Amino acid sequence: MRRILLIVAYDGTNYHGWQLQNNGATIEGELNRAIKELTGEEVQVIGASRTDAGVHGMCNRAVFDTESAIPADKMAMALNTKLPDDIRVRESREVEADWHPRKVSTHKTYEYRIDCERVANPLMSRYAWHIDGPLDIRAMRKASNVLLGEHDFTSFCSVNGTALTNVRTIVDIEVLAEGADEVSFEGEIVLRITGNGFLYNMVRIIVGTLVQVGYGKWTDEDLKNILEAQDRTKAGMTAPPNGLTLVNIRDL
Amino acid sequence: MRRILLIVAYDGTNYHGWQLQNNGATIEGELNRAIKELTGEEVQVIGASRTDAGVHGMCNRAVFDTESAIPADKMAMALNTKLPDDIRVRESREVEADWHPRKVSTHKTYEYRIDCERVANPLMSRYAWHIDGPLDIRAMRKASNVLLGEHDFTSFCSVNGTALTNVRTIVDIEVLAEGADEVSFEGEIVLRITGNGFLYNMVRIIVGTLVQVGYGKWTDEDLKNILEAQDRTKAGMTAPPNGLTLVNIRDL
Repeated sequence: MRRILLIVAYDGTNYHGWQLQNNGATIEGELNRAIKELTGEEVQVIGASRTDAGVHGMCNRAVFDTESAIPADKMAMALNTKLPDDIRVRESREVEADWHPRKVSTHKTYEYRIDCERVANPLMSRYAWHIDGPLDIRAMRKASNVLLGEHDFTSFCSVNGTALTNVRTIVDIEVLAEGADEVSFEGEIVLRITGNGFLYNMVRIIVGTLVQVGYGKWTDEDLKNILEAQDRTKAGMTAPPNGLTLVNIRDL
Repeated sequence: MRRILLIVAYDGTNYHGWQLQNNGATIEGELNRAIKELTGEEVQVIGASRTDAGVHGMCNRAVFDTESAIPADKMAMALNTKLPDDIRVRESREVEADWHPRKVSTHKTYEYRIDCERVANPLMSRYAWHIDGPLDIRAMRKASNVLLGEHDFTSFCSVNGTALTNVRTIVDIEVLAEGADEVSFEGEIVLRITGNGFLYNMVRIIVGTLVQVGYGKWTDEDLKNILEAQDRTKAGMTAPPNGLTLVNIRDL
């Protein structure tokens, strides 16, 4: 018996998220099905990040155990022949039998894309949240620094989250936009955020909150108070899923 | 009667191209319909670039004449309420009554996106041509320079083209890739090409030909011979439409 690690990319538009559901297609469900078609074995893959419905992934991880004789590094190509085009296994390799994608220490990086041009760009609509501009990029950058480091992120966690602790560490947060220091920006913005783990909807609530800073409704001081309140109702809306992509998972 | 210019962006995936057809949705057809819904007038817009089925646009131009009292600059937003999400009018303004989008001197810029990662990136599949790498970026750059300037591009024109002359001028051509001078590149490549006009399928045939240079099948000398032959059968395949986007039209 060998444990195989898959690195998986997907366009989440047509899926009910990563995690298996009774109704509706999921990334996990498609992987389980493809593995069964390939090996004949009933498996249940274990994922690193259970991304929500509509969220995209560039490098999610999934492991499963198999008796199949297919070489580990050939699994990726073989599975891709069984998967729909919007899910691709980028890489496959054997790992230790007890290796678990949620029990290793990692930094995860998410990108959230905002289109704040006056008219939505139809070439970005699957992968960006279109909102009215302009946004004050400088204020968003300043406020985003408040979130750096170890904090209790209860204010940025949807109430149906199930984590044992809401303390997480954000090691990097960037507000990327052409037009470095603009206070009145209309265009494409990418919020890039790296941390040791994220609560349920955490990135999307951070985005929904920073956008209010961009509109001038809140300042970095307000963001400090929101964070300290440990109260979800104090923060901004949950930004829609389509703007979000898991872009990297790095072992520590 | 006023002549209104529309700047139009679209995801071409679900359309049979720009130009009106008897069967199948087209960008032109959608614009005509939206204008009729808005003004009650039967119009036939005139486009700057009749992009093919599956090709995308960021800034195509369309004009139409109207008796409507809607201010010219409000047309864009008003039409967007009548258009599908994958077509957006970015801007609208009044132009001279005899202004014709194909009778003004312009430079058009197209980008063609190639995904030559070993496994296709599902987040790029609508907007890029996935091919097996690696490609020799350095050789592609060197060969692309052969096309710069004024030439008869018959070798790079599909036989059912209807232009009066096949002489065109390419003023700029760039092979953009992270990894400036790589001879063995796997990743995302953008071919960016600017000229005073393009023949039927010209950009896509240039791409299909430069890819053969990237594979080492042809050199820049071969490209010179292909160009001079004025014979479509000498050049490479026509690359698929989904990688192509009209990104800019600039008045001279």
